[in-house]
Amino acid sequence: MVSNREVRLASRPNGWPTSANFEFVESDVPAPGEGEVLVHNVFMSVDPYMRGRMNDVKSYTPPFALHETLQGGAVGRVEASNNPAFAVGDYVSSGLGWREWFISDGRGIAKIDTSQAPPEAYLSVLGGTGFTAYVGLLDLGEPKPGETIFVSAAAGAVGSIVGQIGKIVGCRVVGSAGSDEKVSWLRDELGFDAAFNYKVEGPEDALARLCPDGIDVYFENVGGDHLQAALNHMNAFGRIAACGMISQYNNSEPQPGPNNLTAIVRQRLTIRGFIVSDYADRRPDFVRDMSMWLREGQVTDRVTTVEGIENAPQAFLGLLRGENLGKMLVKL
Amino acid sequence: MVSNREVRLASRPNGWPTSANFEFVESDVPAPGEGEVLVHNVFMSVDPYMRGRMNDVKSYTPPFALHETLQGGAVGRVEASNNPAFAVGDYVSSGLGWREWFISDGRGIAKIDTSQAPPEAYLSVLGGTGFTAYVGLLDLGEPKPGETIFVSAAAGAVGSIVGQIGKIVGCRVVGSAGSDEKVSWLRDELGFDAAFNYKVEGPEDALARLCPDGIDVYFENVGGDHLQAALNHMNAFGRIAACGMISQYNNSEPQPGPNNLTAIVRQRLTIRGFIVSDYADRRPDFVRDMSMWLREGQVTDRVTTVEGIENAPQAFLGLLRGENLGKMLVKL
Repeated sequence: MVSNREVRLASRPNGWPTSANFEFVESDVPAPGEGEVLVHNVFMSVDPYMRGRMNDVKSYTPPFALHETLQGGAVGRVEASNNPAFAVGDYVSSGLGWREWFISDGRGIAKIDTSQAPPEAYLSVLGGTGFTAYVGLLDLGEPKPGETIFVSAAAGAVGSIVGQIGKIVGCRVVGSAGSDEKVSWLRDELGFDAAFNYKVEGPEDALARLCPDGIDVYFENVGGDHLQAALNHMNAFGRIAACGMISQYNNSEPQPGPNNLTAIVRQRLTIRGFIVSDYADRRPDFVRDMSMWLREGQVTDRVTTVEGIENAPQAFLGLLRGENLGKMLVKL
Repeated sequence: MVSNREVRLASRPNGWPTSANFEFVESDVPAPGEGEVLVHNVFMSVDPYMRGRMNDVKSYTPPFALHETLQGGAVGRVEASNNPAFAVGDYVSSGLGWREWFISDGRGIAKIDTSQAPPEAYLSVLGGTGFTAYVGLLDLGEPKPGETIFVSAAAGAVGSIVGQIGKIVGCRVVGSAGSDEKVSWLRDELGFDAAFNYKVEGPEDALARLCPDGIDVYFENVGGDHLQAALNHMNAFGRIAACGMISQYNNSEPQPGPNNLTAIVRQRLTIRGFIVSDYADRRPDFVRDMSMWLREGQVTDRVTTVEGIENAPQAFLGLLRGENLGKMLVKL
């Protein structure tokens, strides 16, 4: 019997979440029964899409239920097993909630290969984050060598991988981020051709300066003034892969959108929203390519960690405020 | 020698155009020379996209030049010919300007078959208008039988054909229009399943009432509150074919866009702008299908005419105000 802590949704935020929207529950976890395994999570993922699930609106996944455990990706170590498919010491990925320990009968958990990459990589570059970047850029953005890609929130988990893939496929890559430190990281370590700090220089001015030949692919993570500026600079037949619009998630009232949507017609743009879970058939390609890029050092994985499940809400809020470089994880 | 009148752009409108933005010029047209034909236009098209060309902005076609003849589609009759490819009495379509008469060496004019349809049909259902509806709905909207199509400006030239094609391909079709007369026409004569007068009932309320199962395809002609309402009601994997956004064309200052663009991600929507001239490879299919639909009475062509080139600016302004049922034409 081990003692487990988990995080539940205490109330729905209106605007920015606060720690009052979260509650902690302690419980005892029994020894695993016949066919069951006991897993100790070692890393837990916090992601922008979770903010949407805190609202009570129709979406591609149902909203988080009040006073139920928050859901999200995690990787953990098998600590006891009565299931022949899992041995003690195996690492597994799962999406069974913001909790330290859990029992599974084998459903909802998948073994990960920690000889290839550390466990946390399966929540970032080799997980849904990397897969989102891969599918969004390649399948929806359809970049061609020599084209210009603009990615917003470029120092975030998805954006930083998008930019690196963009370089691999032979594009010019421009990114926006929220601090000079992030901008330096993008340019000096990840190989972005250009980057700007949108808190110092607005995206309209920055894109006019940094994309003199226009934008062919915009990987949209931010919305708002980033989308408006991108629309002003999109080339004819440009593609916008809409992964998220984090600038809109914490508005207590919906904010007006870009004032230049007629560019969609004039420039014959394609804007496509996507959710990576719709692209399961592309997973083998992703795993093959991303594993190769990691081995060859063409893609760098970067995680920012916050320690302890008691700090998971702070990790999530920090993510929404942009305090992370690369993937934001909670280390348990 | 005949006397010709033509319409030129006198000044660029800021906001709604006025008659002061147009100027008339009279000139003599000589007899056609060797290899030339003399054409008398009988109908001239006015179209919403022309408003965009009055502004000095980068677009898919260059802006109209000041003090030059306005450009637009026309059909005319050959009145004299020294070109063996054209006989007196032939009808030709062209895009050589808002003018009554012109001389051509055969370039820029194409014979039309008036045994199949009256000349004006080649500016409406068999012309760029019908082709726009065809490509936009079928190629970009990709409607499947049983799906719901919403078309805005449904009583306009393109919208009225979109709705009729939607019925032919087995969809439920809902339209918006700006008067009760138009709504009745859509429902009672064109076979729309439902229609509403957006000046009486806003699109948000109307779509909630008329599209209880959501919208799969939105054919976008209007923008603004129509787009916002459509986004609220789009089903997952819905398609938006962006043909135009007429509500935005006469704003002297750009107006904020919809406040719910996050629906693009959440519902995995595809929004694609298009210009029919990019789809020349689809013209044979269009001509074959639309000719058949007209013969079989499955598509009805409707034109609203204004008489005399001196009234062309009023026809254009009336079009922007929605005074037309179906295609707006100037009869010369």
